[in-house]
Amino acid sequence: MTQLVQNTSSARKRLAKNLRSLRARDGLSQEALADLVGLHRTYVGSIERCERNVSLDNIERLAQVLKLDISELLSGGLTFSHD
Amino acid sequence: MTQLVQNTSSARKRLAKNLRSLRARDGLSQEALADLVGLHRTYVGSIERCERNVSLDNIERLAQVLKLDISELLSGGLTFSHD
Repeated sequence: MTQLVQNTSSARKRLAKNLRSLRARDGLSQEALADLVGLHRTYVGSIERCERNVSLDNIERLAQVLKLDISELLSGGLTFSHD
Repeated sequence: MTQLVQNTSSARKRLAKNLRSLRARDGLSQEALADLVGLHRTYVGSIERCERNVSLDNIERLAQVLKLDISELLSGGLTFSHD
């Protein structure tokens, strides 16, 4: 791996953090979310480790499954309530 | 080109629309914006034609240059005022 931690963008960190929170909200494992979104099971893990430069199409798929707007999924102050 | 219009995601359309508006706000050509962001001059045009599945790192670079939060750049109701 040649990826340097110091190069990790704030956008990647934000997406990683939000994804983790939202999975917890919905009680979903990384694998379960990956299945819902139609991505490989290791893909979600790599997003949450900020290793993945996710594409807009995949960000949109994640948002759809998590029932959020894409702008919310990338928000710095994501808050949500349990139903 | 095998890309089908019907497959164009709403996220791509939203980014395309916002980018066009923001360039107009700042009086920037596609080429001038590309130079500021460090992307190829044809890249911005392809985003605005919804042809490009832009990566999160490049969305973040665009947002930084346009002085917006990434969530704003992907917002469906982007509004801005001229300085």
